[in-house]
Amino acid sequence: MRWKIEVKVNLKEGILDPQGSTIEKSLHSLGYKDISKVRVGKDITFFMEGENREDVVKRAEETAGRILANPVIEDYKVEVKKAN
Amino acid sequence: MRWKIEVKVNLKEGILDPQGSTIEKSLHSLGYKDISKVRVGKDITFFMEGENREDVVKRAEETAGRILANPVIEDYKVEVKKAN
Repeated sequence: MRWKIEVKVNLKEGILDPQGSTIEKSLHSLGYKDISKVRVGKDITFFMEGENREDVVKRAEETAGRILANPVIEDYKVEVKKAN
Repeated sequence: MRWKIEVKVNLKEGILDPQGSTIEKSLHSLGYKDISKVRVGKDITFFMEGENREDVVKRAEETAGRILANPVIEDYKVEVKKAN
């Protein structure tokens, strides 16, 4: 069975986000003055083979926590859906 | 009133994703062989001031379509929520 996994990786609160502040400055310079606290995260999707949901969730969490996110500075959320 | 905006930017189907394929190769070399079609997108969040929802959605869409996403190679989705 095929599953679609989505892993959202975001910098932890309080961690400086240079990419976000660069975007914020350019938005302000282009006239979008009413925008604040721009933060940029990663949205990683992939497919995984697996017979039961529990096992797939476990492996997806492991992949996210050990490889896709840096637990020191990033938080992550994992979503698992059956692939159509 | 303050609104929280989330813009998800992803490469269009069929557009090569070098970042995704690099991650896929490393996952495979680390033993995660049952993973395929890794794609990496951006998840951009920010706050916007605005009196009515419709106006905020319009400006958020404009910001996303003109600045945050490259319409030639990327698709984007905008979500607008009241900030708590």
